[in-house]
Amino acid sequence: MDLDDPANRAAVTDLLGVLAYGELTASLQMGADGVHAPSLTAQAGMARLAAADYRHYELLADRMGELGIDPPSAMEPFVIPFAGYHERTRPRNWLEGLVKAYVGDGIARDFYKEMAILVDGRTRDVMAVVLDDRNAAAFVVDVVTRAIEADRTLAGPLALWGRRLLGEALSQGQAVAAERDALTALLVRAGTDVAELSRMFTRLQHHHQVRMASLGLQA
Amino acid sequence: MDLDDPANRAAVTDLLGVLAYGELTASLQMGADGVHAPSLTAQAGMARLAAADYRHYELLADRMGELGIDPPSAMEPFVIPFAGYHERTRPRNWLEGLVKAYVGDGIARDFYKEMAILVDGRTRDVMAVVLDDRNAAAFVVDVVTRAIEADRTLAGPLALWGRRLLGEALSQGQAVAAERDALTALLVRAGTDVAELSRMFTRLQHHHQVRMASLGLQA
Repeated sequence: MDLDDPANRAAVTDLLGVLAYGELTASLQMGADGVHAPSLTAQAGMARLAAADYRHYELLADRMGELGIDPPSAMEPFVIPFAGYHERTRPRNWLEGLVKAYVGDGIARDFYKEMAILVDGRTRDVMAVVLDDRNAAAFVVDVVTRAIEADRTLAGPLALWGRRLLGEALSQGQAVAAERDALTALLVRAGTDVAELSRMFTRLQHHHQVRMASLGLQA
Repeated sequence: MDLDDPANRAAVTDLLGVLAYGELTASLQMGADGVHAPSLTAQAGMARLAAADYRHYELLADRMGELGIDPPSAMEPFVIPFAGYHERTRPRNWLEGLVKAYVGDGIARDFYKEMAILVDGRTRDVMAVVLDDRNAAAFVVDVVTRAIEADRTLAGPLALWGRRLLGEALSQGQAVAAERDALTALLVRAGTDVAELSRMFTRLQHHHQVRMASLGLQA
């Protein structure tokens, strides 16, 4: 990918901006949710994930710095769309917050992984580090499966919650993509046609099912 | 300091526990406050401080690991006293939260610095890293002084707020010290008499005045 091409640069700016804003808000929200975590061990786990998300933000901001992109300007276009998503998916308790961090962010991560293939090598490397969510997954899976084992009645509402998150995340993603021409253009220039887009959605849904299953929940 | 002596070990356990719990809750609270920060730059600054506090927590937990101390058990005695302090000093807005993080935590840090002199060298080194608050101070001073420059009417209420924080932090500290015999015993064994304790309080108040002055506020 030639970053001197303004269209490519705009797409990379959007991609780094949306990712950075996602990590920054995830970091702060993880802290806010951690205040209400039910044990010191759980609080420490939430603080650890929040710090890891901030580290991701820093890596993305550093990459923007290398490219002469101003992080706040690149993030700004995503503030209002994200606020809408969070408004519509407000967790009612600590477990819903955790499931949202894993399942909701997981859908976003899968989408960014598809996009990472289309950008320059150095940006792709940074994205690969940022999009590796194994640590967060292990923590959330452990906490949620224990909670459900202790109280089976939690499984039904959490499964419903997961389905709502999928719907909201997909419609949110489509809304953002429709508004950010640079990202859509990147897909188009890469030769992504409707058939490929449909396969991408199938992959996203499959990964969502795998995540729900790992929590012991029906997708 | 001989850490095989049970009295010394109990004092170091309490000191690491109270410090670790302070850093952990500061990290989570910084995230919670950051959600409401008024700009992306301010949000990123709050997330950075939260990540630094978590890093401090990790250093303290690692030191506990070396000594065979279980972090949650060491932190547990301080959960209820801290909740009382936070209950009585609930910030009404984002700026009050920042001032609390700087001025309230500053008083605690000064006290811990006095205690650090009494413990073993390795624990003292870890505490020195954890108690270095220059990064946080620079961020808070910058944000608060700009806010007051933009709106002079903020100075009066924030100065009052600072005085309340001093009173609550000191009475809080005394309550914790009175209840945790190991910490008091450490001071006594080090030959701290009433005159020295009084000088310590004078030093704490002096440092508080310096912090308030750096915010452009009357102590």
